[in-house]
Amino acid sequence: MKKSLVALAVLAGFAGAAAAQSSVTLFGVIDVAARYTKANGQNVKQLTNDGSSSSRFGVRGVEDLGGGLKAGFWLESALSADTGSAGDTTTTNKFWNRRASVSLMGDFGEVRLGRGKTSTRLVVDDFDVYSTTGLGDVTRVYNTLGSSTQTINRADNLAQYFLPGDLGGAYGSFDVAAGEGAVGAKSYGGRLGWKDSAINVAAGYQSTEGVATAKFKQLSLGASYDFGVAKVSGLWTQLKFNSLKQNIYTIGAVVPVTTAGSVLAQFSDAETNSAADGRAATAGDAKFYTVGYLHNLSKRTSVYTTASLIDNSGLASFKVQGNAVNAARGGKSGGFDVGIKHSF
Amino acid sequence: MKKSLVALAVLAGFAGAAAAQSSVTLFGVIDVAARYTKANGQNVKQLTNDGSSSSRFGVRGVEDLGGGLKAGFWLESALSADTGSAGDTTTTNKFWNRRASVSLMGDFGEVRLGRGKTSTRLVVDDFDVYSTTGLGDVTRVYNTLGSSTQTINRADNLAQYFLPGDLGGAYGSFDVAAGEGAVGAKSYGGRLGWKDSAINVAAGYQSTEGVATAKFKQLSLGASYDFGVAKVSGLWTQLKFNSLKQNIYTIGAVVPVTTAGSVLAQFSDAETNSAADGRAATAGDAKFYTVGYLHNLSKRTSVYTTASLIDNSGLASFKVQGNAVNAARGGKSGGFDVGIKHSF
Amino acid sequence: MKKSLVALAVLAGFAGAAAAQSSVTLFGVIDVAARYTKANGQNVKQLTNDGSSSSRFGVRGVEDLGGGLKAGFWLESALSADTGSAGDTTTTNKFWNRRASVSLMGDFGEVRLGRGKTSTRLVVDDFDVYSTTGLGDVTRVYNTLGSSTQTINRADNLAQYFLPGDLGGAYGSFDVAAGEGAVGAKSYGGRLGWKDSAINVAAGYQSTEGVATAKFKQLSLGASYDFGVAKVSGLWTQLKFNSLKQNIYTIGAVVPVTTAGSVLAQFSDAETNSAADGRAATAGDAKFYTVGYLHNLSKRTSVYTTASLIDNSGLASFKVQGNAVNAARGGKSGGFDVGIKHSF
Repeated sequence: MKKSLVALAVLAGFAGAAAAQSSVTLFGVIDVAARYTKANGQNVKQLTNDGSSSSRFGVRGVEDLGGGLKAGFWLESALSADTGSAGDTTTTNKFWNRRASVSLMGDFGEVRLGRGKTSTRLVVDDFDVYSTTGLGDVTRVYNTLGSSTQTINRADNLAQYFLPGDLGGAYGSFDVAAGEGAVGAKSYGGRLGWKDSAINVAAGYQSTEGVATAKFKQLSLGASYDFGVAKVSGLWTQLKFNSLKQNIYTIGAVVPVTTAGSVLAQFSDAETNSAADGRAATAGDAKFYTVGYLHNLSKRTSVYTTASLIDNSGLASFKVQGNAVNAARGGKSGGFDVGIKHSF
Repeated sequence: MKKSLVALAVLAGFAGAAAAQSSVTLFGVIDVAARYTKANGQNVKQLTNDGSSSSRFGVRGVEDLGGGLKAGFWLESALSADTGSAGDTTTTNKFWNRRASVSLMGDFGEVRLGRGKTSTRLVVDDFDVYSTTGLGDVTRVYNTLGSSTQTINRADNLAQYFLPGDLGGAYGSFDVAAGEGAVGAKSYGGRLGWKDSAINVAAGYQSTEGVATAKFKQLSLGASYDFGVAKVSGLWTQLKFNSLKQNIYTIGAVVPVTTAGSVLAQFSDAETNSAADGRAATAGDAKFYTVGYLHNLSKRTSVYTTASLIDNSGLASFKVQGNAVNAARGGKSGGFDVGIKHSF
Repeated sequence: MKKSLVALAVLAGFAGAAAAQSSVTLFGVIDVAARYTKANGQNVKQLTNDGSSSSRFGVRGVEDLGGGLKAGFWLESALSADTGSAGDTTTTNKFWNRRASVSLMGDFGEVRLGRGKTSTRLVVDDFDVYSTTGLGDVTRVYNTLGSSTQTINRADNLAQYFLPGDLGGAYGSFDVAAGEGAVGAKSYGGRLGWKDSAINVAAGYQSTEGVATAKFKQLSLGASYDFGVAKVSGLWTQLKFNSLKQNIYTIGAVVPVTTAGSVLAQFSDAETNSAADGRAATAGDAKFYTVGYLHNLSKRTSVYTTASLIDNSGLASFKVQGNAVNAARGGKSGGFDVGIKHSF
């Protein structure tokens, strides 16, 4: 380790680029947690992964093309530090399963091509105080209503356009995913938002061709305000597929309690309509409670603890991350973890 | 992204190497294209990969051992930015499927051990104006004649020797692949060439043990001349397996039209002999037309467009890259794409 | 390659870390050998992997948190330069199969969480002059006695504690692996040792829940002394599962013969008890002879040759690394290789 050293921060020696400033960055997150979860009478004790942030390994870079134009790439692979697994290599060959893209950037914004996160998911990430990760991940009670959508988080064959960053707080992106014949893969969507130092509001909408080319539709509206003593977030998501519908209402808060530590709390109420309730696979409501504490040891390293509980009703059997089995229909699923995350 | 930065260009802190200059380089290509292809009445619209260069991610390094001797390594993985896939992890465990090798280099040349490209393929790459990539890839009409060869492009268990670089324009390499009992894996081959600023000529030959240990043989002869207004290339490849034979004649040109842009055009005529024509799996001739335009935004970033058509005759059913189905026997297969590639 | 360059050795530009010194290191080994092995009448000629060191690719880093505290991560993937394979992606998704961990380090020592090598294996590595690698790997005659243990080398879901480095030569570590319901995965163990410039002694013990939750137990005691003309190592390992038992006694020496070259020799005697002898799957003794020569071209690059022979008796059918088939029961297995390894 003595001979160790560091990747970074040098102007490139790339092919004679005089003025062009270029960069290649190695980056990542390792997040490991000791976790206890219980559902339907079965409990599991794990050394597990992704309690607070998603573990990852990536390489990215930007090249200045001159004239305000830039080119960039981004490769990012999920990993599980508890087992050494990376991406999804066994079933789909996707090592770079989080993102693989090339971009052209300029005054006009950014055109990005490849695999990546959809615009609607970015809305959910931003207004879920747990950023759709770990025991508090709000999407644990999202119901894809039998649509076989593959685009609720990331999508293959994605062409995206991002608005430029200098629109006075307004931001947004639009995306189209080429289905290439696969069920649940063809989609279009976008988000529009506005933020300043304290406020952030955004709306996202996405439509995906699901089973029998019926459309799976997601609408997400989010808002947050930083009161200083607490940053409060609200999120409403509506999911639709044919006549089936689910509404998920979420409210959360991040409360700084010391200079380095914050309490995070969140509540979600997930409700399906009567059409969905009539089908065992899609039925049922749930209430989802999470509370946790995150303590920063530095800007790159934190320790945390989280506890969560999903209280299903009707035929619902949602479970928190890590449960070995689904909750009993109408039953409870809960968990508790303590972990550490380190980014580089 | 603010903390982003750069890999590169620093003398290593490696174990006390006083004079020894060493390097480790991260490198890659991301090439994504929007493509339309059609064959046998079926068309596909894709956001796809490798329209002009093969996408890849790699790490390589060189160590100066002193006394004119160097050691080096090279790890290189294919990737598909449209889906995030890398290498061939699902079926063969090969993440570093493009190249994995260790080398000793000196006045004598280079000895290279591992997995990599065979010498004959290097000849085809050099005299195909599309470098065996994308819609213009000349090997789309190459026929392996039922031999089950695995070495027509890359080979496992490869020991290679490369001539030194200071032979007055002469160059060459020789390789042996240990079969280790697998069908189509045991081979030997080589290439010899000569080039100066305008001319390049080379010959490659390879023999591989195929099905029933019969030999699959490839002979490739190529020549190119840069006239200034255009660089013209010619390539003849003959493939043989038992009594089956295919000849592929290729002529292409790269025509610079601006300081940053070039037109690429190529034509191939692939012809099988009567023995091959007698078997449905190996039968048939084809003519292959490609034209495209490549525009460099910088030395590392380009945009391009390519159109190609394979016109099969007899029982042949060759298809351009990206077609969902084979061409109808004796039918046509064609495609068109527009893409961007970025290297780092 | 001209634009090549180097990863390393620069203070990071990471988020405002004033005093904090941080590092990210890319590292690896490529080891390729030409090998001939024979067992049970079948011989194999290979260009193979890992003749002297295990080929690998990794990324690791350390962050100084201030106050004597550090955070670190380590990702390490096995690779086979002869085929381009990496980790174990096809069956288990484990790209980072050698190690994936996050650590907190301070005056108290190190707490490490993730996947990695068990403490008892570290004892075997240290006192096997071939470091459990290549034709001399002592664990080729270790018998897991039908226990289905998965922890004899590395373990998933591992929590480890390492003693600090300033205990006057004493060192040690303790580990617990969460089984998470898998057979052979739940274990605890540790090692304690003491070393100075010439002497090194250590003891390791590990207990793993195997088939039917019966315990698989490993005890390893090792000692080495550097006489100057030779460093002599001794290792005794006892493996137990129910009434089955195996003892493996190993003695080896590393003899420097020039400033750059050393002869390595090792002998192991593996003996099972009568209970194990009564079962074909676990029966039989073996004697294991290895001799080799390693020549350093630099601190990072070496060439080597190794020859080894396992002489089975009774029903034993151990084989050296690389054999296509097991030795005949009571028969011999042997091999010879010449290779090169290069680390970065």
